[in-house]
Amino acid sequence: MKKIERKVLNLLKGAKEASLKLGNIPAGDKDRAILEMASALLKNTKYLLSENAKDAALANKTGISKSFVDRLTLTQKRIKEMAGSLKQIASLKDPAGKILRQWKRPNGLIIKKVSVPIGVIGIIYESRPNVTSDCAGLSLKSGNACVLRGGSEAINSNIAIHKVITKSLEKFGIPMAAITMIDVADRSAVEFLLKQDSLIDVVIPRGGEGLIRYVAENSLIPVIKHYKGVCHLYVDKDADIEMALDIMLNAKVQRPGVCNAIEKMLVHKDIAHKFLPKAAVVLDDKGVELRGCLKTLKILKGIKKAVEKDWYEEYLDLILTIKVVNGVDEAISHINKYGSRHSDAIVTKNKLTAEKFLKEVDSACVYHNASTRFTDGYQFGMGAEIGISTDKIHARGPMALEELCTYKYIILGSGQIRS
Amino acid sequence: MKKIERKVLNLLKGAKEASLKLGNIPAGDKDRAILEMASALLKNTKYLLSENAKDAALANKTGISKSFVDRLTLTQKRIKEMAGSLKQIASLKDPAGKILRQWKRPNGLIIKKVSVPIGVIGIIYESRPNVTSDCAGLSLKSGNACVLRGGSEAINSNIAIHKVITKSLEKFGIPMAAITMIDVADRSAVEFLLKQDSLIDVVIPRGGEGLIRYVAENSLIPVIKHYKGVCHLYVDKDADIEMALDIMLNAKVQRPGVCNAIEKMLVHKDIAHKFLPKAAVVLDDKGVELRGCLKTLKILKGIKKAVEKDWYEEYLDLILTIKVVNGVDEAISHINKYGSRHSDAIVTKNKLTAEKFLKEVDSACVYHNASTRFTDGYQFGMGAEIGISTDKIHARGPMALEELCTYKYIILGSGQIRS
Repeated sequence: MKKIERKVLNLLKGAKEASLKLGNIPAGDKDRAILEMASALLKNTKYLLSENAKDAALANKTGISKSFVDRLTLTQKRIKEMAGSLKQIASLKDPAGKILRQWKRPNGLIIKKVSVPIGVIGIIYESRPNVTSDCAGLSLKSGNACVLRGGSEAINSNIAIHKVITKSLEKFGIPMAAITMIDVADRSAVEFLLKQDSLIDVVIPRGGEGLIRYVAENSLIPVIKHYKGVCHLYVDKDADIEMALDIMLNAKVQRPGVCNAIEKMLVHKDIAHKFLPKAAVVLDDKGVELRGCLKTLKILKGIKKAVEKDWYEEYLDLILTIKVVNGVDEAISHINKYGSRHSDAIVTKNKLTAEKFLKEVDSACVYHNASTRFTDGYQFGMGAEIGISTDKIHARGPMALEELCTYKYIILGSGQIRS
Repeated sequence: MKKIERKVLNLLKGAKEASLKLGNIPAGDKDRAILEMASALLKNTKYLLSENAKDAALANKTGISKSFVDRLTLTQKRIKEMAGSLKQIASLKDPAGKILRQWKRPNGLIIKKVSVPIGVIGIIYESRPNVTSDCAGLSLKSGNACVLRGGSEAINSNIAIHKVITKSLEKFGIPMAAITMIDVADRSAVEFLLKQDSLIDVVIPRGGEGLIRYVAENSLIPVIKHYKGVCHLYVDKDADIEMALDIMLNAKVQRPGVCNAIEKMLVHKDIAHKFLPKAAVVLDDKGVELRGCLKTLKILKGIKKAVEKDWYEEYLDLILTIKVVNGVDEAISHINKYGSRHSDAIVTKNKLTAEKFLKEVDSACVYHNASTRFTDGYQFGMGAEIGISTDKIHARGPMALEELCTYKYIILGSGQIRS
């Protein structure tokens, strides 16, 4: 075993041990520890900014894109937000220990299905240093130990945040290893980590497509993927045009760089002539580049022709690709073929058409007459989220505290044996 | 692309298409189709037996173990049981389409969390041909398409069962591809299949450790593992000795070849001198081979000394390895270290000790004063099961119809946009 592997193994063993102890920490103590983590971030703002400046300087020097450096950079405001997020997490209800169901069998056995923490959660992420404190808070709140592995581009920031937030854990009887950071720059550390299925229970990758694919390909541990959002708006022939314009604009331009923004718009052929010219005016006004299918091009002259690749792509930018469809059936099959099963919306006044769309579109979140931008833990009222799962297993859509739990069966008997 | 791969790809595309259509088949039609599958098995008993005889003959010739041939062999009784299992599945409640939760947001959005089929379920299994009809029935009932890949040793039986049960699907408007069989003998077909994460939503391997590891290592698709059962009985110092003896005997010998039978027994040091000699008598009477730790050996002279490997091993046989422990804490850490997180039981009259055990043992099913043999879909009252999951993600313990579903969020608005 290589030296790096030995180091990672020891860190993971510590996290596993901590996870077994976390079950006995009272909810109040966990909440107090999370609040103290928040204060510690605020108190150490200067230190965090100076460590972050090292990462930013290096990133600027290596000529990485401006948006990348922006994601990486901490500011006083962002640190305040990180602390605020922790405070909000502390205020939520403990998701573990709930009796989800209880029943009695004819032989007298009482079976209780109880929510419990998953155990050890591995989080592999890129650039944004706030993920470090967000995920640490969510994991601790739900009684899980976490193993954090941020990108090397943010290593100084992540180490500093980790140092600050774990300092006072032991005061509350919480082992420091409950929030474990893999601070080994070597990528082989990640590959090794992904094989330790006896020490980590689930891995959540957060970042670009490349990272997620890498984790899915190399992991022996179950992975919950937070993949891209190729979200659609379908404007039906029975749509309220003003409502459709509002929702389209909100879903496309309010924050184009996030996964729940729309990337494609499908428009019923019977409404296209009326709707598309109006849509083009307001989108153009916001600087949105339009691409379209051949039928769209006949209505919106001069826009770029969409190619096959466009239908799959998550631009995360002010680009919208438009297709004219024959009806809701074509819209549904298009979305099920090209979408990423994230969030898709229909605008229509026709209830039956809406019901068909909501039932047959195979996505985590399907909307009738509302913007896809609501796919979000806070907006759903769940509180902070670890991300938006595009998998169908275990967690689908916003993944918050409840989804950081699994369950166990507790069976109470009086000597029952099986005949 | 190789010819085999092209063939598998076409089969998978068919299954995916079928899965999207299954959502629109009324529950009654699915039930009638499943009942017709049951009758078809009975009507074609002769044909099934003759095809199965080909597999059995080949297995006998290649000198495979007797228990393997036994698992492979169909009899009139077993075919009746397969049909009975399908009838039972038809009688269960449809697990999809349930509103799991519904709430309203301050902005007026109504959010419904609704259970829906997962989509396409891949099942990779060995020897037992009844898995073919059981899994087909469970998948269809829950609205999922399934892709079945049985072992090459049972290929004639599996193809025959598949042919018989899919014959009348179309009468009920169900595409035949809803139950797809990968009848390509080449193992490269499995490797290729495991990479098709856009066509299969979850893979469930059922079989020996080797198969499960192979699938987990090669799959890009989420896997729910049904791993071994290294189950424990802990006999506490406050145990009712007669009850402990009954539960021990039941959990060990009633059916030693299954995953919920106990393989290890932990005994509190204060009761060991009284309990172990009695236990040895009744176990010996049933032909159970005992192995023990050094402290056990001092009480039960002449039994085999346990080695480290024993504590991890699933014997599936009349062998029981015994350890004397200092108390419930040692029992818990032993189980969490060596167990397979399947089913573990405590016998004690002390409520506090029981509570500690039930809370801290990190297994799917934890029992107080009852046999581990109850870990089973039927025994839990869930009906037929696809297996016992030892994973913590999505499904834990008996995996039945409810666990073959995921959920989606349906959000109903009146033009809401995000500010």
